[in-house]
Amino acid sequence: MRGLMKTARGPGNLELKEIDEPRPKKDEVLIEVAAAGICGTDIHIKHDQAFYTPPVILGHEYSGKVVEIGPDVTQVAVADLVVSPATQYCGKCYQCKTGHMNRCTAEGKKILGTSLANGAFTKLLTVPEYIIHTIPKGVTMEEAALAEPTACVVHSIIDKSPIIPGDIVVVQGPGTMGLLAAQVAKSMGAGKVIVTGVTADQWRFDIAKKIGVDMTLDVQADPDPVKTIMNESDGRGADVVIEASGACIACSQALELVKIAGHVTLLGIRGRPLDIDLDTMAVKELTMSGTWGTLPSSWVTTLRLMGSKKIDVAPLITNRISLTDWEKGFELMESQKAIKVLFTEFD
Amino acid sequence: MRGLMKTARGPGNLELKEIDEPRPKKDEVLIEVAAAGICGTDIHIKHDQAFYTPPVILGHEYSGKVVEIGPDVTQVAVADLVVSPATQYCGKCYQCKTGHMNRCTAEGKKILGTSLANGAFTKLLTVPEYIIHTIPKGVTMEEAALAEPTACVVHSIIDKSPIIPGDIVVVQGPGTMGLLAAQVAKSMGAGKVIVTGVTADQWRFDIAKKIGVDMTLDVQADPDPVKTIMNESDGRGADVVIEASGACIACSQALELVKIAGHVTLLGIRGRPLDIDLDTMAVKELTMSGTWGTLPSSWVTTLRLMGSKKIDVAPLITNRISLTDWEKGFELMESQKAIKVLFTEFD
Amino acid sequence: MRGLMKTARGPGNLELKEIDEPRPKKDEVLIEVAAAGICGTDIHIKHDQAFYTPPVILGHEYSGKVVEIGPDVTQVAVADLVVSPATQYCGKCYQCKTGHMNRCTAEGKKILGTSLANGAFTKLLTVPEYIIHTIPKGVTMEEAALAEPTACVVHSIIDKSPIIPGDIVVVQGPGTMGLLAAQVAKSMGAGKVIVTGVTADQWRFDIAKKIGVDMTLDVQADPDPVKTIMNESDGRGADVVIEASGACIACSQALELVKIAGHVTLLGIRGRPLDIDLDTMAVKELTMSGTWGTLPSSWVTTLRLMGSKKIDVAPLITNRISLTDWEKGFELMESQKAIKVLFTEFD
Amino acid sequence: MRGLMKTARGPGNLELKEIDEPRPKKDEVLIEVAAAGICGTDIHIKHDQAFYTPPVILGHEYSGKVVEIGPDVTQVAVADLVVSPATQYCGKCYQCKTGHMNRCTAEGKKILGTSLANGAFTKLLTVPEYIIHTIPKGVTMEEAALAEPTACVVHSIIDKSPIIPGDIVVVQGPGTMGLLAAQVAKSMGAGKVIVTGVTADQWRFDIAKKIGVDMTLDVQADPDPVKTIMNESDGRGADVVIEASGACIACSQALELVKIAGHVTLLGIRGRPLDIDLDTMAVKELTMSGTWGTLPSSWVTTLRLMGSKKIDVAPLITNRISLTDWEKGFELMESQKAIKVLFTEFD
Repeated sequence: MRGLMKTARGPGNLELKEIDEPRPKKDEVLIEVAAAGICGTDIHIKHDQAFYTPPVILGHEYSGKVVEIGPDVTQVAVADLVVSPATQYCGKCYQCKTGHMNRCTAEGKKILGTSLANGAFTKLLTVPEYIIHTIPKGVTMEEAALAEPTACVVHSIIDKSPIIPGDIVVVQGPGTMGLLAAQVAKSMGAGKVIVTGVTADQWRFDIAKKIGVDMTLDVQADPDPVKTIMNESDGRGADVVIEASGACIACSQALELVKIAGHVTLLGIRGRPLDIDLDTMAVKELTMSGTWGTLPSSWVTTLRLMGSKKIDVAPLITNRISLTDWEKGFELMESQKAIKVLFTEFD
Repeated sequence: MRGLMKTARGPGNLELKEIDEPRPKKDEVLIEVAAAGICGTDIHIKHDQAFYTPPVILGHEYSGKVVEIGPDVTQVAVADLVVSPATQYCGKCYQCKTGHMNRCTAEGKKILGTSLANGAFTKLLTVPEYIIHTIPKGVTMEEAALAEPTACVVHSIIDKSPIIPGDIVVVQGPGTMGLLAAQVAKSMGAGKVIVTGVTADQWRFDIAKKIGVDMTLDVQADPDPVKTIMNESDGRGADVVIEASGACIACSQALELVKIAGHVTLLGIRGRPLDIDLDTMAVKELTMSGTWGTLPSSWVTTLRLMGSKKIDVAPLITNRISLTDWEKGFELMESQKAIKVLFTEFD
Repeated sequence: MRGLMKTARGPGNLELKEIDEPRPKKDEVLIEVAAAGICGTDIHIKHDQAFYTPPVILGHEYSGKVVEIGPDVTQVAVADLVVSPATQYCGKCYQCKTGHMNRCTAEGKKILGTSLANGAFTKLLTVPEYIIHTIPKGVTMEEAALAEPTACVVHSIIDKSPIIPGDIVVVQGPGTMGLLAAQVAKSMGAGKVIVTGVTADQWRFDIAKKIGVDMTLDVQADPDPVKTIMNESDGRGADVVIEASGACIACSQALELVKIAGHVTLLGIRGRPLDIDLDTMAVKELTMSGTWGTLPSSWVTTLRLMGSKKIDVAPLITNRISLTDWEKGFELMESQKAIKVLFTEFD
Repeated sequence: MRGLMKTARGPGNLELKEIDEPRPKKDEVLIEVAAAGICGTDIHIKHDQAFYTPPVILGHEYSGKVVEIGPDVTQVAVADLVVSPATQYCGKCYQCKTGHMNRCTAEGKKILGTSLANGAFTKLLTVPEYIIHTIPKGVTMEEAALAEPTACVVHSIIDKSPIIPGDIVVVQGPGTMGLLAAQVAKSMGAGKVIVTGVTADQWRFDIAKKIGVDMTLDVQADPDPVKTIMNESDGRGADVVIEASGACIACSQALELVKIAGHVTLLGIRGRPLDIDLDTMAVKELTMSGTWGTLPSSWVTTLRLMGSKKIDVAPLITNRISLTDWEKGFELMESQKAIKVLFTEFD
C-alpha cells in the first residue's frame, strides 16, 4: 500500500512510498482509513518545524473501519467505525498517574503520524485498543475525521475555560480551531460568540455564520475593534476570550478585550516569544489557561456532541482529495485557501 | 492632629500636615490608629507613579481601636480592636453583584489613604462599618497592621492557586508579599516551599527560614537555578510558582520552573511589558492567575490564620518608628533595607 | 391601595386590606407592580406552614416600574422596569462576608412579602436599591415576574450542578421549578433532558415538550422507570438528576437513576424526614447539593438568559388574574391545576 | 507457602492453606509481602457480608519488596519497596475513560485479596506494574502497609472536600478512617479538628491527641454535643463534617453540626438505609460527597504526605502479629480493641 511518508529530517523529504500492510499486535486493532485531515502540524513537519521521528507515515486526524483485531482486544470488534487520539500513553508515569495522559512522559512514546508509529495518510494503520473510541450513529466518516481537533478544543474549552450560559465569548482567528472553539462555546450556552479575523478571512466569516456564530469582526477594517467589542458587551468586555489565531498581537488584545475577572484561553501557538503587559493579569484579576492535546474524557464528550449535532463540523470540510493529490492538499492549507482538507481516497 | 499628606500631584509633595479630627457619619466608625505600615504603593504615590487623589492622608495598612460609632452602626462597638481593607465597594455595580467587590466600578469609589478618603498615617480615621473586621485574640496590634497585605496574598493563593498538601511551591522574591505567600502556601499544606532571590537578599533569606521556608535559592549565585529547582522536585518542576518579585525575567523563569499541568500565580507588578514565550502555557498545559486586592472573605480567612498562628507576620516587621520620622521610614523602604516599616506613634 | 395581607398567625387570616401607599426611604425605590406570581411559599403561609411575620402583604415574585426614588439612589431611575429578590442582606455578617448573602443572618432581616417588609400582591411596594436588577429588552413584564424562581433555579443548577455539554439530565417533577430546571440544564448544553412525573402530570408534560424537553416519563405508567432511564443513557444512568418534586420516594430514586460519579441536585422540599440508603453516595461516588434562594450573581445570569430567550418562561404562565380574584388564584395552585398564576391587575 | 484463604462462600470458611508460589506474568511484578493490615472488609468477607470470589487469599492493605519482574516491566526493579491499590482497572471502559478508574466496570476486574486475584495475607503476591507505587524514603514498611486506607481518605478529603486553611472540621468516629481523615484535614490546614466518639472510645481519643487532633468529644457523655460543637465554632457549626463512624444517627447529626454553606463528607458505610431530613441540604445550602476507593493520583499525594511526615500513621498501628495468629488478629478487630492490626510474619 502507499503512504505519505516523511522520509528524513530536513525541509521537504515528503513523498508517497510503497510500504507493507501492517498487522495488529495482541492488543491492537487494524483500521482501514476512511478519511484523514491535513493538520497544521503536518505542514510544520513538512518544513521540519515540529517534532517527529522519520521515517514515518503522516496523518493523525482520521476515521476508519476496524478490519482485524488482535487476540487481547475485548471492546472493539471487526466492522466497528472508530476514531482515536494520536498520542499513546503509558499509564505508569507521574503525568499519567496524576490524570494528564496527554502529557505522558514515557520514553519511546508513540504518536500516530508523528513519532514511532505510522499515521493515517495511507490505507491501513494499527492502533492500540485502549485509545480507540466508537463513532456514534449519525456522524459520517468524513465528519468523524475531525474528532481529533474537536477533542483538542473540547479539552481546552470545556475542561479549562469557565464559560457559563449567556456569556459573551470572543474567538480570535477563524481557522479550524477557532471555528470549533466557537461551536464548543455555543454548546456550553454562550449567549454571544464573536469571531475576529482579518480582511482576507471574509470567506471564513461566511462559514462562521453558517455554524451559528453571532457576529464576526474584521479587526483590520474596524478602526477600533476593542471599542466595538466593548460596545457589544455593555462596556465590560468579553467574559472569555479564546486566542486561536497564533498572532502575537492577538494575545495582548485578548487582555484588552476580556472583562475584569474574565478568562483568556490560549488555543493558538505562535512559535516565538511576544511582548505583553502581564500586569493586566493582576490589575484585571484574570485567569489564563493553555492546553495540549486531549484527555480520554475529551473524546467521550466530543463524540456525544458530534452525535447530537451540538457540534457540526461538516461546514469546516472545504476540500476532499485523493492521497495521490497530496501536494495540492498541502498547498491549499499553506496558502490558507482551505479550512479542513480531507484525504478520502487512498488507492 | 497631624497626618502625612500627599498635598498635590507630582513627585514629592508629601508632608506632615495639621488637620481637623474627623467625626464618624451615621454608618461609620471612628478609629484610633495603633499601627500603620508603609506599603510599596505609598512609595509609588510619593513618586507620582500610582493612582491617588490629592490632598489625601496616606496609609491603608493599619490596625486600630474604635473610639466612636455612628448611630446606624450595629456590629462594631467602642473599644473593639479592628482592621479593614482600604477599598470600599458599592454593592450595586456589575462587579459587586458578581462577587468581585475588589474590582467595584462605582464612580467616586473611596480608597482609604489613596482616593477620596483619608488613610491611617495619622491619629484618627473614619471607616464605614461594613468593611470592618474584628482582630482575634492573641494577635497584637502591630501584627494586625499586616492583615491587609496578608489578605491580598490569601486571596491570590487560597482563592486562586491550586495548592494541595505535599506540593512543591516556588516563591520568587523574598519581599513582604513573597514571604507572606510562602506562609500562606505552607498553611495550605505545601510540602516544600522554596523562596528565590538575589545575593543582596541574604538577610531576607534569614527571615524566610525563621518563618518556616524549607529552602532559599540565590539565583545570582547559583550557576543554574532552573536545574537546582528541577533537582529539588524529582526533575518535574514546582507544582505552583508564585511570582512575587516584580522582575520581568522572573515571569519567564516561572514558566520554566513550573511542572507540566502546573500553575503560575502573579503577585508582583512590573510596571511595564515584558518579553515572554506564552506558547509554554499550551505546551506545558499551564494555568495562570492574577488578583487585585481582597474580597471580604479573604479577611475572614486571614484573621483566622493569624489568630491560630498558622501565619506569623511578626518576623516581617523589621522597623517601628514615629510618624515624625516618616522620611526615615520611606527611605528604609526605598533602599530595600526593611521588610515592613510600621508607624506606631502618631503624636 | 388594596393589598393581600396575612393579618395574623394561624391558618387562613388572609384578606384584601386597604393600606396606605408607601413612600421610599433614602436608599429605596418605589415600584408600581406590573405582575406578581403566586408561589408555593404563599400557599404555605396561608396554611401557617412557613416562616412569616404578620401582618404582611404577601408576594415576592414580581416585576414592576419605578415610580419614585429616594435621594441616595444612584443606579436606578424613574420609569426603569425592574425586578428584585425578596431577601435583603446586611453585608456585615459572616454569611454575607463569605459570599452567602442568600443566607444572611442579620437580626431583623427583611424579606419582601414574608417578613418585616410588604410584598407585591398590591399596587406599590418599596425596595432598597441595592437588590434591584433592570429587566432587559425583549422580556415582557409578565415573564419578568418569573425571574425570582428562575434565579433560584439558576443558582441551584448553574452555580452548583456540574452539567457539561451533551449530558443526560433527569428532572423529577414537572412543576414550576422542574420546568425551569429543565430549561436551565438545556442552556448549559444538556444533550438529553428527561422530565419525570405522574399520570396526572400529562398536561404538564405537554408544556415540558413545548419548552424543549427531550423526553417525559410517567413513572406511574412505566412498569420500570429506572430501567427506562438506564436504556436512555447507555445503561449508565443520568449524569445529573435534579429532584424537583418534593416527593420522598424521588430522593431514593434519584440515587438509583444517577450514574456512577454523577450528581444529585435537591431543588424540592419535602417538609419531613425520609428513609434513604446514603451508602449509595459512597458506593457510586456521588455528590449532592442543595441551595436556598439566590445570590446577586444568579440574577445577572438569569436576566441574560431571559433576554436572549435561552430561557423562555412564557409557557409556564398558565393563568392571569386580578388581585380581586385572589381566592381563585390560590385555589388553582392548591389543586395543582396551574403552573404559574400571575396577578396582573391590582386596582 | 501459606496463605489465609477464604475457601468458599458462607460465614467462616477462612483458613491457612498451603498454595504454590506465584510467578509474575509479562507485565507483572512478584512482591514479597513485608506487612499487611486487616481491614474491615476482611471481617465482612469472613462473615460473608461483602463481595468476593472464593477461593481467594485475602489481604489488600500491604507493603512489600519486589523480588522478580516480568519481561515487559519498565519502571519497577527488583529490590524496590512498593505498595499498590487493590483494584485493577481496564483503561477502556466509560468509567476509566472519564477518569474514574476506581469505579472501572470491566468484566472480570481483578481486586487483590477480594476477587480473581490473591491478596497479601501470604508471603508472595503478583501485581501488575501499572498500579504499583514506590515507597518514599523515611517511610517504614509497616507504615507503608497503611498507604491503602490513607489513599482512600486522601481521595475522599483532598479530592472532594472543600477544606481551606483555618477551617473547623468535625470527624465523627475515631477508627482507622476517622483518624486518617483527621490527619488529612490537618494537612490541608484545618485550624481545629474535633474527633467525636462514644465513651468506649477513650483509648482511641488518646491516640487522636497523639496525632495532633485539637479536641475530642464523647457524644455519650456530653449532654448536648451539638451545642458543644457550636460553642467551638463561634455558634456557626463546622466548615466540614466528615462522617467516619458508620452510625446512622451520625449522618443526621452531621447535617446539624455543619455550618450554613458547609460540606458533609461520607467516609463511613452503614450497611442499611437510614432516616434523615434531607431538606436540611437545601435550607442550609449544603454539599455532600461520597467516594469509593482511590485514584492513581490519590497514591501520589498519599506517599508524598507520608514521606514528609505530614501524615503519621505509626500511632494507628496497635498490633503486630504473625499470620499464624490470624484468628487473634481478626478477634482484635471484631472486638474493637485495635485500630490497625498488621501481619508482619508470614512463615
